[in-house]
Amino acid sequence: MDSRYDIAIIGSGPAGLSAAINAKIRNKSIVVFGRAELSDKLVRAPKINNYLGLPDITGLQLKDRFENHIKSMNINITFEKINEIYAMGEYFGLMVNEKMYEAKTIVLATGIEYTKALKGEEELLGKGVGYCATCDAPLYKGKAVTIIGYNKEAEGEANYVNELVEKVYYIPMYRDELNLNENIEVVKDSILEIYGKEKVEKVILKHGEISTDGVFVLKDSISPAQLVPGIAMEDNHVKVDVDMNTNIPGCFAAGDCVGKPYQYMKAVGQGQIAALNAVLYLDKQQVN
Amino acid sequence: MDSRYDIAIIGSGPAGLSAAINAKIRNKSIVVFGRAELSDKLVRAPKINNYLGLPDITGLQLKDRFENHIKSMNINITFEKINEIYAMGEYFGLMVNEKMYEAKTIVLATGIEYTKALKGEEELLGKGVGYCATCDAPLYKGKAVTIIGYNKEAEGEANYVNELVEKVYYIPMYRDELNLNENIEVVKDSILEIYGKEKVEKVILKHGEISTDGVFVLKDSISPAQLVPGIAMEDNHVKVDVDMNTNIPGCFAAGDCVGKPYQYMKAVGQGQIAALNAVLYLDKQQVN
Ligand SMILES: Cc1cc2nc3c(=O)[nH]c(=O)nc-3n(C[C@H](O)[C@H](O)[C@H](O)COP(=O)(O)OP(=O)(O)OC[C@H]3O[C@@H](n4cnc5c(N)ncnc54)[C@H](O)[C@@H]3O)c2cc1C
Ligand SMILES: Cc1cc2nc3c(=O)[nH]c(=O)nc-3n(C[C@H](O)[C@H](O)[C@H](O)COP(=O)(O)OP(=O)(O)OC[C@H]3O[C@@H](n4cnc5c(N)ncnc54)[C@H](O)[C@@H]3O)c2cc1C
Repeated sequence: MDSRYDIAIIGSGPAGLSAAINAKIRNKSIVVFGRAELSDKLVRAPKINNYLGLPDITGLQLKDRFENHIKSMNINITFEKINEIYAMGEYFGLMVNEKMYEAKTIVLATGIEYTKALKGEEELLGKGVGYCATCDAPLYKGKAVTIIGYNKEAEGEANYVNELVEKVYYIPMYRDELNLNENIEVVKDSILEIYGKEKVEKVILKHGEISTDGVFVLKDSISPAQLVPGIAMEDNHVKVDVDMNTNIPGCFAAGDCVGKPYQYMKAVGQGQIAALNAVLYLDKQQVN
Repeated sequence: MDSRYDIAIIGSGPAGLSAAINAKIRNKSIVVFGRAELSDKLVRAPKINNYLGLPDITGLQLKDRFENHIKSMNINITFEKINEIYAMGEYFGLMVNEKMYEAKTIVLATGIEYTKALKGEEELLGKGVGYCATCDAPLYKGKAVTIIGYNKEAEGEANYVNELVEKVYYIPMYRDELNLNENIEVVKDSILEIYGKEKVEKVILKHGEISTDGVFVLKDSISPAQLVPGIAMEDNHVKVDVDMNTNIPGCFAAGDCVGKPYQYMKAVGQGQIAALNAVLYLDKQQVN
């Protein structure tokens, strides 16, 4: 069991890092969940002209600058993906598969997933379609499960699921060498539809189909509504006010996940507001 | 008469400059009002740790970086102080003394004045106390006027007023060599109160008093409520929503003037949101 952090920041993009440096300056204990390359979108940006003070910079260069900044303040990224966050009243429980982290406040800075939902994905959500393979795999003991993986991390989840269920199919949505258990059947084909009348029956492919009891769609980020049950959304984004409060007390959000424009400075500005308001929130709790 | 700009940005601090670079990238015609040192607060900051990507930087260094950025994009600052902004329906009229600029949209990025009001200042506002000497000087023909100047710019206004009224007293609230017309009587003393029953009668000083018909208080910035008649305020700040809309269509605001936290990244983030929403607003007008 980890200690209970003051502020848990979900996401290591510009919004999350900005929240991190500001929370750290205010002497709060923090944990930042994310990835080594900080943000996929950041490293992919070819040329950035609108980060005030750093004209004409590439995404990779800006990433290096962000990295230097957090290193200079002894901020580390915890390379884990949070599956679900429960508001427990006094604190939040953050699930990474079986492991739980605890924090008094949350800053959601998960970015936004551009990937379009597959045909049938939303309709069959909870009826055989899920986003957290390691959470729900036990439901499929003795059954067949298909994993649609959008990134290499999904391979680890597939290997884990493979220990629990009868049969695992893996459909990679990316080009890379796969590191999968031998029993897992890799299917390299285009997905047309996840099909089922009441619940998932099969995955229909361009050149065939897979009979399956469950389908896990493993994308880079989980939608905020999946991540934080009960969070209020508006037009597919986390609903926030000018102070970056969500509808859940102690839970703040910032960056692409709260809405357009999808931009760096907007993300860092909101990350700062979210963190400083989390600090105010903590300080108020202290007094009471 | 100047051409009608797409976007007029009032203020050359981080919020205004961020609005400027984003509006410029979107190919809008802009005018940015401000000062040569960009922002007094910026140049005075001894050490900034929370501007993501530029750790451990002084305010002066950050100012130089901002300057290089806007220069690289051919953005110039117009060194004028806007006295009043009128919403004319189709456009906004921006007054600099007698001169008027026109713009289709406005981004207010004026920062916030920390200076506390003098005793009597707010009570006698409009009853002899004013903030725009050059606007209201003609009202005091043949009378005595006291100018309380918080910065060197006030000296120019004092010299101008001196041509129109009978007698000008000048109370400098700063330490610097003064560049004033000979007739102007300089009073170096601490102000205790601006006094008057129905309207201004005198300025009470620590070591005496000045009988006067009018008092102009010339601070770095005018309160937004003075600057834009009809703008909705909340707790002394311009009221905005998450998209940086004010209550006046086409008028956006960002940075310290819209509320706490008073911070750089928050200011640049909001400046970007304000500018991009001004762009959306303009594009919608285009279609109609
Ligand atoms: C090619 C490209 C070019 C761009 N160019 C520009 C530009 O020039 N100027 C500009 O202003 N903007 C640009 N953008 C947009 C900009 O990249 C985004 O607005 C910005 O990255 C948003 O920051 P963020 O912190 O909200 O989210 P992201 O940068 O998306 O970061 C979110 C992070 O959170 C992590 N995460 C998500 N969920 C979890 C979870 N459950 N557990 C742990 N970690 C999680 C993700 O892995 C990711 O690392 C560009 C985007 C792209 C794709
Ligand atoms: C000593 C000091 C240290 C600080 N340190 C930090 C720090 O470490 N980190 C941090 O994040 N923040 C810090 N701040 C706060 C930061 O300076 C402000 O939050 C930031 O400058 C706000 O930006 P802004 O663009 O909203 O306003 P400002 O920077 O105040 O800029 C407003 C500009 O608009 C101009 N203006 C106003 N009215 C008009 C008008 N009518 N016509 C034309 N121009 C006008 C003003 O002259 C000014 O140039 C510090 C502040 C001070 C004073």
